[in-house]
Amino acid sequence: MGNTIGSIFRFTIWGQSHAPAIGVTIEGLPAGTHIDREKLQLFLDRRRPGQNQYSTTRKESDTAVFAAGLNEDSDTVGAPVTAIIKNTNTRSSDYNELKYIPRPGHSDYAAMAKYGESRDAAGGGQFSGRLTAPLCIAGGIAIQILEKKGIKISARPVMIGGETEEEKMLERIDEARADGDSVGGIIECVIEGVPAGVGEPMFDGIESRIAQMVFGIPAVKGVEFGSGFGCAGLKGSENNDPFIFKDGRVQTEGNNHGGILGGITSSMPIVFRAAFKPTPSIAKEQDSIDIRTNEAVKLKVKGRHDPCIVLRAVPVVEAAAAAAILDEIFLSEVRL
Amino acid sequence: MGNTIGSIFRFTIWGQSHAPAIGVTIEGLPAGTHIDREKLQLFLDRRRPGQNQYSTTRKESDTAVFAAGLNEDSDTVGAPVTAIIKNTNTRSSDYNELKYIPRPGHSDYAAMAKYGESRDAAGGGQFSGRLTAPLCIAGGIAIQILEKKGIKISARPVMIGGETEEEKMLERIDEARADGDSVGGIIECVIEGVPAGVGEPMFDGIESRIAQMVFGIPAVKGVEFGSGFGCAGLKGSENNDPFIFKDGRVQTEGNNHGGILGGITSSMPIVFRAAFKPTPSIAKEQDSIDIRTNEAVKLKVKGRHDPCIVLRAVPVVEAAAAAAILDEIFLSEVRL
Amino acid sequence: MGNTIGSIFRFTIWGQSHAPAIGVTIEGLPAGTHIDREKLQLFLDRRRPGQNQYSTTRKESDTAVFAAGLNEDSDTVGAPVTAIIKNTNTRSSDYNELKYIPRPGHSDYAAMAKYGESRDAAGGGQFSGRLTAPLCIAGGIAIQILEKKGIKISARPVMIGGETEEEKMLERIDEARADGDSVGGIIECVIEGVPAGVGEPMFDGIESRIAQMVFGIPAVKGVEFGSGFGCAGLKGSENNDPFIFKDGRVQTEGNNHGGILGGITSSMPIVFRAAFKPTPSIAKEQDSIDIRTNEAVKLKVKGRHDPCIVLRAVPVVEAAAAAAILDEIFLSEVRL
Amino acid sequence: MGNTIGSIFRFTIWGQSHAPAIGVTIEGLPAGTHIDREKLQLFLDRRRPGQNQYSTTRKESDTAVFAAGLNEDSDTVGAPVTAIIKNTNTRSSDYNELKYIPRPGHSDYAAMAKYGESRDAAGGGQFSGRLTAPLCIAGGIAIQILEKKGIKISARPVMIGGETEEEKMLERIDEARADGDSVGGIIECVIEGVPAGVGEPMFDGIESRIAQMVFGIPAVKGVEFGSGFGCAGLKGSENNDPFIFKDGRVQTEGNNHGGILGGITSSMPIVFRAAFKPTPSIAKEQDSIDIRTNEAVKLKVKGRHDPCIVLRAVPVVEAAAAAAILDEIFLSEVRL
Repeated sequence: MGNTIGSIFRFTIWGQSHAPAIGVTIEGLPAGTHIDREKLQLFLDRRRPGQNQYSTTRKESDTAVFAAGLNEDSDTVGAPVTAIIKNTNTRSSDYNELKYIPRPGHSDYAAMAKYGESRDAAGGGQFSGRLTAPLCIAGGIAIQILEKKGIKISARPVMIGGETEEEKMLERIDEARADGDSVGGIIECVIEGVPAGVGEPMFDGIESRIAQMVFGIPAVKGVEFGSGFGCAGLKGSENNDPFIFKDGRVQTEGNNHGGILGGITSSMPIVFRAAFKPTPSIAKEQDSIDIRTNEAVKLKVKGRHDPCIVLRAVPVVEAAAAAAILDEIFLSEVRL
Repeated sequence: MGNTIGSIFRFTIWGQSHAPAIGVTIEGLPAGTHIDREKLQLFLDRRRPGQNQYSTTRKESDTAVFAAGLNEDSDTVGAPVTAIIKNTNTRSSDYNELKYIPRPGHSDYAAMAKYGESRDAAGGGQFSGRLTAPLCIAGGIAIQILEKKGIKISARPVMIGGETEEEKMLERIDEARADGDSVGGIIECVIEGVPAGVGEPMFDGIESRIAQMVFGIPAVKGVEFGSGFGCAGLKGSENNDPFIFKDGRVQTEGNNHGGILGGITSSMPIVFRAAFKPTPSIAKEQDSIDIRTNEAVKLKVKGRHDPCIVLRAVPVVEAAAAAAILDEIFLSEVRL
Repeated sequence: MGNTIGSIFRFTIWGQSHAPAIGVTIEGLPAGTHIDREKLQLFLDRRRPGQNQYSTTRKESDTAVFAAGLNEDSDTVGAPVTAIIKNTNTRSSDYNELKYIPRPGHSDYAAMAKYGESRDAAGGGQFSGRLTAPLCIAGGIAIQILEKKGIKISARPVMIGGETEEEKMLERIDEARADGDSVGGIIECVIEGVPAGVGEPMFDGIESRIAQMVFGIPAVKGVEFGSGFGCAGLKGSENNDPFIFKDGRVQTEGNNHGGILGGITSSMPIVFRAAFKPTPSIAKEQDSIDIRTNEAVKLKVKGRHDPCIVLRAVPVVEAAAAAAILDEIFLSEVRL
Repeated sequence: MGNTIGSIFRFTIWGQSHAPAIGVTIEGLPAGTHIDREKLQLFLDRRRPGQNQYSTTRKESDTAVFAAGLNEDSDTVGAPVTAIIKNTNTRSSDYNELKYIPRPGHSDYAAMAKYGESRDAAGGGQFSGRLTAPLCIAGGIAIQILEKKGIKISARPVMIGGETEEEKMLERIDEARADGDSVGGIIECVIEGVPAGVGEPMFDGIESRIAQMVFGIPAVKGVEFGSGFGCAGLKGSENNDPFIFKDGRVQTEGNNHGGILGGITSSMPIVFRAAFKPTPSIAKEQDSIDIRTNEAVKLKVKGRHDPCIVLRAVPVVEAAAAAAILDEIFLSEVRL
């Protein structure tokens, strides 16, 4: 059901924010694949909070421990690879008062409706952004494999709080922090080096697969490829990218198609953008209700809050894209 | 593999633009589900070209013939339901000259790279918009089932050629037709009546599932939910929708979350928008290359062309949304 | 959901005995795969009734018509391949009296319980042996692909009505026909030429995959590999097959393991047997009940009956085995 | 890919015999499902070696630790449930000499061919019988859920070393131990209380699903339902089970069909048998080859050996059956 994704490179993410542990099991890795654990840990560290002043200062111990699937040389043995991250803070008492007062913009109310009394409300439970850590393990491994195939993935924020210049983005974050508020943003991701002809038909096209994966990241509310929503104002003669032969290979002039035609790669860079809503956790007082009585209450979320998750989400977007692309490449290899 | 989608309400779409037939096989329909064939045909007719002056005038015979799965009362028998649409124009000779000259913005080049010489180049082959007809059969059936559950789906264009007013949208289409050009647009879809708590975790959340399905529609380059890309310029205090108790049920003030929190429904209307690129087929001369020689050529696509597919795509978006939602609802029923 | 099977070479079988048509849609065939239609039709003809005196004489028109997925050279285009067989006898009135009186040994009662009033009771509906025809199309195509890879599949009856000699087997069938009765049997299938190392771990091992497929054939009640049930009386020192190096390659002396160790191929021939129960349709009077009143009734099934389906089932077993093995081989190719 | 199985009640088993840990992640458990951990541990203990003189005396610590998915009341929270068993003996040096000399009857050679040099050869790696422990966790949970639905599963050995009487079975095991040899056997499993109408069509019928699961247990070489292979010597008039109305419900006289007709339950007890080969690990000298040189070698496997795994396999068969049936029941609930 949605914790598992992929056809060949397939993984299952599990855990809750305050459970004893979170983790991921990855199937489909060919035996003999070397995993550079140090590099992987550095990648994981990029999504950790407290990396800079623009993130929350909560300390999380995000050390991936491999419980199975690797030999002493850190090569895959052909069995599933399981990595586990222990949660250090498993006290859930802090969240008791929130159990019946859904935080606006959070999954609380939807989770109540779906899972009822027995759900894990602490720290967002299974909906916590903390679950992006195991996604980064799976995606970080995918990135290492893609690199060996000459494929490079890089993401960066292109808008935060309505601003597109880096300095102003950071200003908006500072302001939000000072106000006990938060800001949203847009991350752009570029995947270079994927040959033409990768991608399955219809619902398993590159766009479908990347979108399914990226919308699985908490707070993502939009995904677009190439000229994206902008193409709604363009004419075909403007939006079509003419084919040219250049530098010894077929290319296009312009890349409004974002490297994907008919769901299949064209060999041009794959370009997509993901819109992140402002973190719903804010220090400001908000309106909510007590679902036991349906009475209106004023809610003030205590403790740490993160004014902008966009910076931390950059490696998560890279991980999601890598996982989607690697599976498509594995599927393509069957066909050759 | 992507021609099949869904966990319980699962279907496989097959066919090419000029193959003898196109069709769909649907699994997972409970036995005894009545299908109103006349209503389904009317729904199918909404996506047919030649419906009005704003669409291409090609005649297509889109009559769904049920080859299996229904009894004489048009009730499902518990076996898969297969519907077939015969293609009347199966001559592919018209397309011979295009076989080696990829049309800009089309799937031609990607298909060449993926499928090679044996591919079906005629009329876009398996990438043809014509394959949205079987999607409309599956989705049209889903709509009928959802209606009985009190769920209503409706889509409409909210932008065409950069315009948001209806009259101006049609003007842009007329201009594009006169110019031998085309225009893109945005369709908004609203799903009302889905109770809170529907949607699977993480990668099978409502957003992931709708996006995977909708990006399977040719020409879609962006999908966003609720405030979507707009939320990148908002603060948390602006974007969070406060909970209220009104008309005897929990609701939110505002619907920036588009009816989905943590991938799960909140009982508010599900709202999403899909961006359609301008039809790549235009009458204007374009630059391309002959992939046999890599030499530049001027390409002029002959015959009919459709200046705007957005109007016709409206029922297709409804169909895709219905199929995704029905599967999520079926999955939810297991849990209760 | 079970009408679809396979990970890469994946197909969906649809239809009922007396629906307008039955058919199959196959995904995952690499573009450019040539299908020898004449050879495929000859394969299909092997399972048709009325081929010899030892089968029923009902005439069935089992001509596979390809509705999509092949080009004019009969090569796959990369899109799903759909083949359709029209049913000539779609009158279901003959079966009305059976609708509420379940035939012993048949699926009738289970189908009533599962699908209720709207089910298709005519001729076994979706449970009819007729649905093995589309399985033979998918499997027949798999056989052609496997042949090009040097893999050969052949099945034969090794027991019928308790007899293991060919002449006596046929005697038992003749006797059963004369008595209005039927006999069961065992088919053995050998797959030669699969290299070592094919098969996925655990639940997708060769045995798991072949068994899932073969138990999908109506009337199969047992599947065993190598020494099978016989190994329950053997010692390890008798059942273990010693490794030897012979004819330039690693082999085993003996093949109690049936070519499979740990679910993975050893390069020795894969050997399995499937037990078929006697056809439940017999002319003899049997005890049943009328499920409307729960009263006991004497049931005498009229019309044609087939005293032994084992001969006709031989190509079906080959088809099932081929489909399972081809998918495992496709999965193996990803890993290399 | 085969470490994951199931449509709704879906789980992924991971680990190797001498990896740091083994475990299982289970998706699809409805929130609020209580898990009796003590009862589960008692179930797990039934498969542990060293339980009696008829099993190996190796001590294994099979304590299931729940890392996620349960709240403090041991109720499911709606997130995947992950249980982990730590391996205490992770030294793999004992197995170095075996790395290039495949043990007859073991997965060694097939694993070499599939996974190459980087594979985990220690203690059978991912092919170890030890991996049946996580299967017993998933299945043990399924058993608890089925019990609440009035469904009872029980298995027992019906043949060991060719004997069917209990005392003689144990004698054969004692003899085998004394000889440094091993014996195989047959386990019969009965599932009572499943209502009529459970089971999906064709390849997801009860027989297909149970067989796929049970063949995933190491050493299983045959699976049969009801009269099974015995039906090959029966006539239809003997094998068909007449319907009767008794004790207020529809039943059959006799149960040659093993509770399954057309892949769907009939409400009669589901009965199947699984054939286990003699443990390939024996103390006797055997013939093998060194795959580096292809030279013949005499192999004598040192250390503990288990003369008969059939007794220990009883709960594993129950677990496999329970997991298969629960998933089918969940799928049936969608339809109702």
